[in-house]
Amino acid sequence: MAELNANNTPAEDLLKQHLEEVIELLNKQRLEETILQHQSMPRHDLVETLLHKQHQVALKQKLDQLHSADIAYILEALPLRQRLVIWNMVQSELDGQILLDVSDAVRQTLISDMDPDELLTATEQLETNEIADLAPDLPEDVLQELLESLNDQSRAQLESVLSHEDDTVASLMDFNMVAIRDDITLGVVLRYLRRRGNLPEHTDKLFVVDHQNALKGVLSLKRLLVNNPDERVSELMSNEVVHFKLSDEAADAARAFERYDLLTAPVVDEHNRLQGRICVDAILDYIREESDDEILNQAGLLEEEDLFSGIWQSLKNRWFWLGMNLITAFVSTRVIGLFENTIEQIVALASLMPIVAGIGGNTGTQTSTLIIRSLALGLISPSNVRKLVTKELGIAVLNGLVWGSLIGVVAYGLYRDAHLGMVMAMAMMLNLLVAAAMGVAIPLVRHHLKLDPAVGTSVLLTAITDSMGFFIFLGLATVFLI
Amino acid sequence: MAELNANNTPAEDLLKQHLEEVIELLNKQRLEETILQHQSMPRHDLVETLLHKQHQVALKQKLDQLHSADIAYILEALPLRQRLVIWNMVQSELDGQILLDVSDAVRQTLISDMDPDELLTATEQLETNEIADLAPDLPEDVLQELLESLNDQSRAQLESVLSHEDDTVASLMDFNMVAIRDDITLGVVLRYLRRRGNLPEHTDKLFVVDHQNALKGVLSLKRLLVNNPDERVSELMSNEVVHFKLSDEAADAARAFERYDLLTAPVVDEHNRLQGRICVDAILDYIREESDDEILNQAGLLEEEDLFSGIWQSLKNRWFWLGMNLITAFVSTRVIGLFENTIEQIVALASLMPIVAGIGGNTGTQTSTLIIRSLALGLISPSNVRKLVTKELGIAVLNGLVWGSLIGVVAYGLYRDAHLGMVMAMAMMLNLLVAAAMGVAIPLVRHHLKLDPAVGTSVLLTAITDSMGFFIFLGLATVFLI
Repeated sequence: MAELNANNTPAEDLLKQHLEEVIELLNKQRLEETILQHQSMPRHDLVETLLHKQHQVALKQKLDQLHSADIAYILEALPLRQRLVIWNMVQSELDGQILLDVSDAVRQTLISDMDPDELLTATEQLETNEIADLAPDLPEDVLQELLESLNDQSRAQLESVLSHEDDTVASLMDFNMVAIRDDITLGVVLRYLRRRGNLPEHTDKLFVVDHQNALKGVLSLKRLLVNNPDERVSELMSNEVVHFKLSDEAADAARAFERYDLLTAPVVDEHNRLQGRICVDAILDYIREESDDEILNQAGLLEEEDLFSGIWQSLKNRWFWLGMNLITAFVSTRVIGLFENTIEQIVALASLMPIVAGIGGNTGTQTSTLIIRSLALGLISPSNVRKLVTKELGIAVLNGLVWGSLIGVVAYGLYRDAHLGMVMAMAMMLNLLVAAAMGVAIPLVRHHLKLDPAVGTSVLLTAITDSMGFFIFLGLATVFLI
Repeated sequence: MAELNANNTPAEDLLKQHLEEVIELLNKQRLEETILQHQSMPRHDLVETLLHKQHQVALKQKLDQLHSADIAYILEALPLRQRLVIWNMVQSELDGQILLDVSDAVRQTLISDMDPDELLTATEQLETNEIADLAPDLPEDVLQELLESLNDQSRAQLESVLSHEDDTVASLMDFNMVAIRDDITLGVVLRYLRRRGNLPEHTDKLFVVDHQNALKGVLSLKRLLVNNPDERVSELMSNEVVHFKLSDEAADAARAFERYDLLTAPVVDEHNRLQGRICVDAILDYIREESDDEILNQAGLLEEEDLFSGIWQSLKNRWFWLGMNLITAFVSTRVIGLFENTIEQIVALASLMPIVAGIGGNTGTQTSTLIIRSLALGLISPSNVRKLVTKELGIAVLNGLVWGSLIGVVAYGLYRDAHLGMVMAMAMMLNLLVAAAMGVAIPLVRHHLKLDPAVGTSVLLTAITDSMGFFIFLGLATVFLI
């Protein structure tokens, strides 16, 4: 892997500079293409074509200098047409790595531009765990051919990864590791490593196994380097080691990496046999992906959209939650419909009711966000739920008193109607209680039912706080004001 | 740092088990305290006290076995009273590390339970960069005394970190690194490391500097291990290295770590002199914190709340955005107020208007979330903004046609009024256009003004889509239906 030549420019600025240069070259090229098409005088043709070639060469040179991750970034930032121009110019030995580095949405546009042979060449160079990452996006026939091209060990590894669920440790695992026995000296280990001639990326420890490949401990490179070559591995290895099983949850592994500041950790099967390792860079990608997903889901998007995805694709991505919201909006509309007689008599209710519903939604979301977070951190146990509920309801009562009175006074100020003010204040208080109760209950119940508490909670919550807000406010108004 | 003894239990389950055991012991203890208080018969006293002591010893033993990060987790999950019981039982040499591991909210509860001497003892053992992390939470006098206890080099380092902004590379930096010259052989380096006797945590490369401490390159441990000891550092070091300046943005450094799969990277000052390093575990914590902040901000919370924060503290945390929402809700209320005459005549408008406003808010949030994300990734440049705006407005028009017509038909179905249906459809279409335009414009303008596009966008957006939704719908109704 080539390293970036950063000179004195910070990595991020340099990257933007690369992007601008590429865009400039692309634009020049395009301009010339346009001129060439409109040019009728033959004697200019040669010059123009030469200039065109020259820019193409410059662009190719520029790309050849770049790290695969930087090319991935440039491809993300370009609209489809230009993206494919660049993609076809990239050195084919980087193709596989770039496919791994781009986002899912962009990957699909790149793959659909490649013929099966190109795809096969690009993916054959990848490591088993990388092929597993790409597998869902590959056409069936390419995947088949790829499987056949692998040796027995790699095929077994690939099948093992693919047989586990998406969010398990198996999906984060790679197979680049050095395993040693514990009955040799450090000197032997050092000679073995020199003979080997290289070490897998990010190796910070060697895994110590017995003759059945069962994990016995780890030897950190640190200890290998600072200790006397005569000492034995068994004396220096650590046998208290954070390790994971194939079927452990990826989120748990990520928390363990954060908590214990790990760089790599061994992965074992049910019989404690060494299967692979997890590396912190896979954890970093996982955490970023999870938090992106959470933010997208909260905004009502199913998945990440490529910045220049086709409109139709974007619509598909956005319609599910829009539709859900529309349905819940209609439900709360029907609640208002029940009270149309009341509104006809006191039209001020129509202006005030969105406030009751809106603030309910806001406080409910605050509560549910904190609960979802605590659930993710594993901080909520049966023994502290009651304390938690008491706290949230206490906050709702106080909020209700403060904001309810304030809004009651403002409503009175606007319409000079003391009863209206009191109804407004009471409705606010009650709806805040509903919101707090639901903000605690919905994530807890979803968690209890083994559903992801983060998905859909917000839509369900708003539906309830809206409907209840309208119902409570208009109901109280009907009883006390009519 | 002791490593976790995982035996055959996955780290996360083991942790929950630890928590349950601690809670059980705490409850037993408490029960006995209660019995002791209500016990009047003196002859039982001795037995009870003994039993009480016994549980205390068991609890202490349990805690002594745990990793500091695990104790931090247990402290997070306990209500204040029990948290402080445990905190006072923890071995004091772990105090500093635990203070670093807990969340800001819990840290404050722990610090306010310690007297200045305890705090000083706990923090004196920490490294300079760790002291810098705690500094904002320490009482002024403790911080002063701590500064005086440091040697000149550490004090200079601490002052350098504290003089930089929170979100710069300086805040992620530590000073644990090994720097070497380039004119020596690997054999000399290996002997030097053995004489040194240890290596900083997470060292994957040594930094190569000249006699003025200017960064010349890096030598990875990998190359050190697999090459012949006779070779020179200058021949094997890599001089194309991703490095950062003290004042670079932390977010950019995080992206570079993800992009180039780094474990550590050198940090230099303006004159290219080596100042420290960034380690991937600091990046991991940074990314987690940033994404947590983003999720909390979107829900209208200023910062992370401890699960058992006092009610008053929780209220302070939540009131700012609630207040903002209330103000914007009142603005849209006043828009409705303008049309009370219209609503009085066609009361159906009151039930239908929340739909127009709500769906506008939803589509606007979808658009702005994607824009905010692309801005964070640095994917938006002047050259592609127009394409982006066209795409989002195109989606809005299509969404408007589809959902607008659908809702128009439903409104007609409900009230048997074709004109009302058409007004509803038109209002939906127009408000979706407003929402898309604002969803693109607000983050871009905030970014242009160097404001964080993620903060406040959602409140501003909803305020506009609500007000405009009501205005467009009721305005059209006034023109066409009255």
